[in-house]
Amino acid sequence: MREKSKLAEKAARAIGLLGGGVIGGGWAARFILNGIDVRLYDPAPNAVESVQKVLANARRAFRKLTMVPLPPEGALTVVESVADAVRGVDLVQESAPERLELKQQLLAAASRAAAPGTLICSSTSGFRPSLLQSEMEGPACFLVAHPFQPVYMLPLVELCAGERTVPEALERAAAIYRAIGMHPLVVRKEVDGFIANRLQDAISREALWLVHDDLATLEEIDDAVRYSWALRRAAIGSYRMADGGAGMRQGIEQWAFRWPWSRLTDKPEMDSAFLDKVAAQADALAKADPLPVPLEHKRDDLLVALLQGLRSEAYGPGETLARWEQQLRDRAPLPAQDSEPLRTLRKIPSNWIDANGHAAESAYLQLCSDATGSLGRYIRENGADLENGGAYYTVETHLTHLGELHAGDRVEVLTQVLGADDKRLHLFHVIKRDGDDEPAAMGEQMLVHVDAKTRRSAPVKGPVRERLLQLARSHAQLPRPDTAGASIQMR
Amino acid sequence: MREKSKLAEKAARAIGLLGGGVIGGGWAARFILNGIDVRLYDPAPNAVESVQKVLANARRAFRKLTMVPLPPEGALTVVESVADAVRGVDLVQESAPERLELKQQLLAAASRAAAPGTLICSSTSGFRPSLLQSEMEGPACFLVAHPFQPVYMLPLVELCAGERTVPEALERAAAIYRAIGMHPLVVRKEVDGFIANRLQDAISREALWLVHDDLATLEEIDDAVRYSWALRRAAIGSYRMADGGAGMRQGIEQWAFRWPWSRLTDKPEMDSAFLDKVAAQADALAKADPLPVPLEHKRDDLLVALLQGLRSEAYGPGETLARWEQQLRDRAPLPAQDSEPLRTLRKIPSNWIDANGHAAESAYLQLCSDATGSLGRYIRENGADLENGGAYYTVETHLTHLGELHAGDRVEVLTQVLGADDKRLHLFHVIKRDGDDEPAAMGEQMLVHVDAKTRRSAPVKGPVRERLLQLARSHAQLPRPDTAGASIQMR
Repeated sequence: MREKSKLAEKAARAIGLLGGGVIGGGWAARFILNGIDVRLYDPAPNAVESVQKVLANARRAFRKLTMVPLPPEGALTVVESVADAVRGVDLVQESAPERLELKQQLLAAASRAAAPGTLICSSTSGFRPSLLQSEMEGPACFLVAHPFQPVYMLPLVELCAGERTVPEALERAAAIYRAIGMHPLVVRKEVDGFIANRLQDAISREALWLVHDDLATLEEIDDAVRYSWALRRAAIGSYRMADGGAGMRQGIEQWAFRWPWSRLTDKPEMDSAFLDKVAAQADALAKADPLPVPLEHKRDDLLVALLQGLRSEAYGPGETLARWEQQLRDRAPLPAQDSEPLRTLRKIPSNWIDANGHAAESAYLQLCSDATGSLGRYIRENGADLENGGAYYTVETHLTHLGELHAGDRVEVLTQVLGADDKRLHLFHVIKRDGDDEPAAMGEQMLVHVDAKTRRSAPVKGPVRERLLQLARSHAQLPRPDTAGASIQMR
Repeated sequence: MREKSKLAEKAARAIGLLGGGVIGGGWAARFILNGIDVRLYDPAPNAVESVQKVLANARRAFRKLTMVPLPPEGALTVVESVADAVRGVDLVQESAPERLELKQQLLAAASRAAAPGTLICSSTSGFRPSLLQSEMEGPACFLVAHPFQPVYMLPLVELCAGERTVPEALERAAAIYRAIGMHPLVVRKEVDGFIANRLQDAISREALWLVHDDLATLEEIDDAVRYSWALRRAAIGSYRMADGGAGMRQGIEQWAFRWPWSRLTDKPEMDSAFLDKVAAQADALAKADPLPVPLEHKRDDLLVALLQGLRSEAYGPGETLARWEQQLRDRAPLPAQDSEPLRTLRKIPSNWIDANGHAAESAYLQLCSDATGSLGRYIRENGADLENGGAYYTVETHLTHLGELHAGDRVEVLTQVLGADDKRLHLFHVIKRDGDDEPAAMGEQMLVHVDAKTRRSAPVKGPVRERLLQLARSHAQLPRPDTAGASIQMR
């Protein structure tokens, strides 16, 4: 709990973005979809369109990635100068092309114009931070924050301090990146390419030798990797299965470089014959295994699938995702007052649609679940203690379908407490499409309070009990729905 | 279909296994769980126990990996000689320790004893097939078939022919490996380490330099990889997003080896100080991030989650999994008859899990939906016409929760038709976890037949109507569930 409140406190409200290419666009998307305003400076004529395109891809991917409602989007403001971009922001993210002098100039300009204490971060893939901060007036709050493509999907951000960076800057930056669902990794020593890209560079070198020597094509290399160790490394890394130090030592003694398995003493000459060969293979691959256009959608869907898989195991990047969702849940706005049914707003995501083109029947129950979740937050955050050691589990649901919902529909769920006692909670949800008079569905539910430890039904106690009984009394003044208590009958 | 029957025809019935270590055990598990008999030769005293342990892990993982019923297990027979192991088998898989002379001897002995035409495959991680087949009497049917750890989970098997191998041997072997759910990749030219391990060797080299130079620890290296590019490579590889030849050329010209991002001109000295350092880091990692014991379970669960994620996108290793399941389904017995409730099997996917770690309530309704879908297929596939211009829409559901389901649980949904008339269909679903006596949930549903064009309720006609009424009459002989027609009441 302490960590959470610390994070919430340190989340950014606005950031300045220098450069809106693929990386800058990915940053813009990640910040905006987390409710943070972005001030973009990029002199390229099509920068805004390019950012908008990445943002559209990210919106689509986030809808699939999480069921938790996202906060209202941050605003994207396009500005005409570095000074305008860094004004009033908590953090500046530089994502200019990989040219040292260009980055140094931009960072120096940002440093001159930013308020003291503003974090200034570079997305550089390889330059050492001491080199980048050399021209800055205020280098203490500068660091490298190197993300990975697609920035809005992959959780890693490598943080690296320069000689003149203060340690506190790294901590503040890490909290901001964590709050937008990332996994900051501190690179403790300055080194060209940091950690992840040095390893990718090694693979690339060997892969291009394989192509050069006609041992494998790009397609064969990709398949060799993705059907074997990339799966294992994405799942659990490489060193966790070593069985500790003894196993690791034995493994290295037995295996490391005992045979001539890589050709790493040089790099292939990048002459035009070689470039032609690589380009021809890439074309052949695109033809042999054509992905639906835009490619980014398929890539993102696959990443969503992997991240959700890891989330179900609460491990690695999946744990990062779960923690981010918890933060989003904690920040979601609260519904109305005791005197009215609780109001929960939702938008029907595209992956809730069934083969007939409308919302799958389970989507309606999910809306009821979400509304019950809102009720829980409403009860707790209006004065009741979170720590009462229990939770409400649904034991019965009666769902009635009256209309159809479609992807993108905005709906409200109005939730009335029909009854409550020491163990039970009787709810009635009315699901309405925005603007409609008639409901699209109604859900009646009985929930039972369950002890967190024994997982058996147990009385609810303390302030939560008081609040619930109070809410039930208030809602008893509201008209009781006609169909409450109905059963399914084939008359 | 032609390809499928060809595969089925070429599936092995029995294989001989030379060596029952970690790799041999993984092979044993993959073959046995696919219904293929295994004859194991391994002079080590604890070889059988070791194979049994891997087999137990594989059984556990396969139960989570697929809902499709597996064929009856093949038999594991322990034999006392190479000659006994290769007798009457379709394929011999050699997985002895990585010592050239030992492998040559075993393969020569296998070749002398095996029936002509028996495939003989080596699991070597690095030796060239021409070297391995040099002592063999019948080298024509010999090839390298190099798998990846854990063999029963990772789909890749690299196939490589030696100078004296006939091409037809590769084709036959590929069909056998495909039939046990693998993805054979033909390595077209002989090279030490083949493809995948040459790339891993390059990573290892760079990783150990990072450790040697104190730039990163094993834990930092693992995190840098698994939170970033390992996810992307597992999802979609590296070259598919290059936008064909032009993009690839530009990428290489712009990026490849332009900066000193890897240190590949040598390998670190494997002296005892360095080994101590690596071992200490591996111990620290094991302490910092302790995995539940046995480690293999967590690793397998994570791989299951990734493979299922990719299957949902029908891509890469997920497509391999889907194709394997289709083969299993084609071989599986047909479902029930009119005289029993219809049985639908499902596995709870990882993205159906809520914040409490068990299946979200909407998951139970999804199971009812799926079961209704099965009913539709059952009705149509037993003689009725698909094209009747209508569909059944759920109008009411009463769901009762009695237990919890978790990710990976295998469940069966038993569906009874409680009633049917010209427009309505009254169903009762019982959801049970595999092996449980008591249901986890029950769902009662009323569906109405809707005209596809008008989207209004309309009578069902023709053969679908006949089949449904007939099924309703048969199911009327079954006991009626006690709770049918119940309503939600706060008594």
